Amino acid sequence: MLGVDPGLVETGYGVLETGANGLAVLDMGVITTPGTAPLPERLYALHAAVHGILGRFAPALLVLEDLYSEYKFPRTAILMGHARGVVCLAACQRQVPVLHLTSAEVKRAVVANGAASKAQVQRGVQKLLGLPRPPRPSHVADALGLAVIGLSRASGHLPG
Amino acid sequence: MLGVDPGLVETGYGVLETGANGLAVLDMGVITTPGTAPLPERLYALHAAVHGILGRFAPALLVLEDLYSEYKFPRTAILMGHARGVVCLAACQRQVPVLHLTSAEVKRAVVANGAASKAQVQRGVQKLLGLPRPPRPSHVADALGLAVIGLSRASGHLPG
Repeated sequence: MLGVDPGLVETGYGVLETGANGLAVLDMGVITTPGTAPLPERLYALHAAVHGILGRFAPALLVLEDLYSEYKFPRTAILMGHARGVVCLAACQRQVPVLHLTSAEVKRAVVANGAASKAQVQRGVQKLLGLPRPPRPSHVADALGLAVIGLSRASGHLPG
Repeated sequence: MLGVDPGLVETGYGVLETGANGLAVLDMGVITTPGTAPLPERLYALHAAVHGILGRFAPALLVLEDLYSEYKFPRTAILMGHARGVVCLAACQRQVPVLHLTSAEVKRAVVANGAASKAQVQRGVQKLLGLPRPPRPSHVADALGLAVIGLSRASGHLPG
């Protein structure tokens, strides 16, 4: 199960699987693209990185954060749309279905509060996954939260 | 020279070259994706089509319409951002540089009026390129207008 919190500057990702002892983190991290590079090159780097992650882990599902809460900054939202587009494309090219969830759904699932702070989500994800420290930056925690929901929907219940 | 007016439902494109007798249209048309298909599949179809056009014509430049005038409908603008993202990606994969222009720039170049109507742009493009009729739908006229500006910038003057 792959969770992705897309962005042009930083895209968080987290790969989870359900093992004998509960949820296990196979990989997590941030894909960054240089702000000095032209937009097509940044999208190329992001697409290649996601394509590579999908190839390494062959997840059954990619859970992708939706952007419709980004209305306050239209230019940022449109640029994030570009990033989200190449993530969707990579999933289709790898024949991995995409589930779209909002960050409010992640917050509700992880902290039981759709308006939770970034730090609350980070601590909630840490607790759910038994991590030694809260995932940083917050995009990684969001991505892991998305993957947790994906697994819970696949299995029919929330873990923990 | 390839002009692209990106959209999830309809993406207009036009391929121009400068010949002995002025500007020549090598190809023009609309890439449509089915509204019933999941977003990743629609982006896949659009990306594959643009990738194919870039392969057939090997343009020196892709002139892509900017979306920052789409603030009135944020959700539409974000979805168009997805479409624009996979077009940018195809250009980078084919090593074709991208020039970003607004539709107001096209209108100014083609009709000498940044607030021109779609019909005016269609007639202006028809006249500039000596076409038997106005390009339809309007996305094709916009794409051809983008390509005209691209050629004029490359050569240093506007044709016609």
